[in-house]
Amino acid sequence: MPEIAHIEVETELQRYFAAARLRASDYGTHYVALWDSLEQASSGGKRVRPALVLAAFAGLGGTEMSLAIPVAVSFELLHTAFVIHDDVIDRDLHRRGVANVAGRFTERALAHGAVGTQTGAWATTAAILAGDLALSEAHRALALLPIGAEQRGRLLDLLDRAVFVSAAGELADVTNTASKTPLSVEEVTVTLEQKTAVYSFEAPLMAGAVLAGASEEAIVALGRFGRLVGVAFQLTDDILGVFGDPARTGKSALTDLREGKQTALVAYAGTTGDWPAIAPFVGKADLTQDEAEEARVLLRSCGALQSTDELAIDHARRAVAALDTAAIPAVLRTTLTQLADTSVNRSR
Amino acid sequence: MPEIAHIEVETELQRYFAAARLRASDYGTHYVALWDSLEQASSGGKRVRPALVLAAFAGLGGTEMSLAIPVAVSFELLHTAFVIHDDVIDRDLHRRGVANVAGRFTERALAHGAVGTQTGAWATTAAILAGDLALSEAHRALALLPIGAEQRGRLLDLLDRAVFVSAAGELADVTNTASKTPLSVEEVTVTLEQKTAVYSFEAPLMAGAVLAGASEEAIVALGRFGRLVGVAFQLTDDILGVFGDPARTGKSALTDLREGKQTALVAYAGTTGDWPAIAPFVGKADLTQDEAEEARVLLRSCGALQSTDELAIDHARRAVAALDTAAIPAVLRTTLTQLADTSVNRSR
Repeated sequence: MPEIAHIEVETELQRYFAAARLRASDYGTHYVALWDSLEQASSGGKRVRPALVLAAFAGLGGTEMSLAIPVAVSFELLHTAFVIHDDVIDRDLHRRGVANVAGRFTERALAHGAVGTQTGAWATTAAILAGDLALSEAHRALALLPIGAEQRGRLLDLLDRAVFVSAAGELADVTNTASKTPLSVEEVTVTLEQKTAVYSFEAPLMAGAVLAGASEEAIVALGRFGRLVGVAFQLTDDILGVFGDPARTGKSALTDLREGKQTALVAYAGTTGDWPAIAPFVGKADLTQDEAEEARVLLRSCGALQSTDELAIDHARRAVAALDTAAIPAVLRTTLTQLADTSVNRSR
Repeated sequence: MPEIAHIEVETELQRYFAAARLRASDYGTHYVALWDSLEQASSGGKRVRPALVLAAFAGLGGTEMSLAIPVAVSFELLHTAFVIHDDVIDRDLHRRGVANVAGRFTERALAHGAVGTQTGAWATTAAILAGDLALSEAHRALALLPIGAEQRGRLLDLLDRAVFVSAAGELADVTNTASKTPLSVEEVTVTLEQKTAVYSFEAPLMAGAVLAGASEEAIVALGRFGRLVGVAFQLTDDILGVFGDPARTGKSALTDLREGKQTALVAYAGTTGDWPAIAPFVGKADLTQDEAEEARVLLRSCGALQSTDELAIDHARRAVAALDTAAIPAVLRTTLTQLADTSVNRSR
């Protein structure tokens, strides 16, 4: 996204949080701390969703940045809300190595003399409320747009679908854990699309296009591109989660295996004769570096790595193919083709 | 509220849930079950908030029911969202004696072979998502109203304030539990106003008035009435929670004492010389009927019951006084005066 637009999104988010913090100060220091935690949760990311909104908007002829910025902020805050509520579900107190909302309120509870189950209640309450507040602002930012009813209705429908489908994917992600056998690669892929691709790629791109007043053909093409490229990103993330260099990905290459994350790698391996040898490593909470390496050798030799790689590349290729319409201007096509390349070619 | 409007609210909610369930069926049976749980969570209540929206709307000359019904539904779904997320915070698996969203998904997880911590994850996930979905629809119902930008903006501001202040109150309710000394009566009252009165009384009444195109004076008067009568209701609930007849209130008269709920009764008692005798009963998880009766005798003799009663009556009286303006038509004033009477005169 253009640097200037990037700065405007940051400025708008800062303005929003500064106003909320000021307003919160009438309700005590804990509530101000909650808003601080929420702002922290929303910062430090790559602002992928705002970048997609603005790329589609500008790439399809949109010029009124004062309309596009709130839409970009809306999808960023939707992401923040999902991340925060996801952490409650996973009972995580940290994200990217620092205390998240629940982690910060755990510390705060202890500092204020909370005992026993009270500490957990502070943490859960703060995180649920922070997510609710971010989700509310995601809706409000679109609802207040000074545009026509039909256009606003379409944007609200995109947000509605994003919430609806993400909830389905999040639920599937959790209910899948009770499965006694590996999921199919198809099931894994569908869950990735529902849980992430729709709200993170499809909806922001389509929203930017709708706001730019683009043709129906362009809107539909961007939606299809978004779903496919979103899955390509997630499949590649799953590969990097096992085969990546922690120094480059910034993420341990043990976590996914230890947690028994149901990835396409694992799903494919489950269909091969090597599964009995691989299964003991998947979900082994105390997996060692040596065992992880053994798992990697097996995931490679059984064909799971290659198959998942190909699946990601195939999604990226189909994503680019979706752009093959005169409704998508050449410059936008070039930008998005680069994005599709990045989705599968990242540091391992 | 007029019976016909009541039916229209129910019909609209049923229509909404039926459409969502149909849409959810593309995403598997667990997601359909989630929507079933959400519909159940939203049903069986007294529809207080829709009734207030419609009373203010009709009482101030509003006639276009197709506009008022979505606003009524919005505040009802906001309530549903708060109740569901509140239950996650309190780790409750039941509400009004039946399994709530988390309770139903606990059963569902076990039926589908979930083991260990998975069961809790199913329950928490379902409840957080159900709340998010209800909260989203609360926003969407207002955002889609076919009215002018200024009027819609005012309604969205009321919803925004309702979410913002309720979150502050919910947080205060939880952080207050770490307090080593009883709260002051003032602190208890402020928390009741923030946590419940604003979103349940103030906002629905003001929204109905705004939608009816009422005067600024009428809108402000209804807001003030709502805050005060909402506190009167909550104070009376706290009295009934200890002194009520379970056969009439439908609620155990032990729960509040056992949980150590920080009510105005307890706050007042904390300022009296009887507190050392009362304190051991407050928060005693295995409190017996005899001990509860002893606590009641003490709460009466120390003046806590009478003081709380007077505080509730004073709020109800001030609520009615807020209506003393020509901007509030006589018929609406009569209706709301009856409501204020009910707030403090309920079956004990």
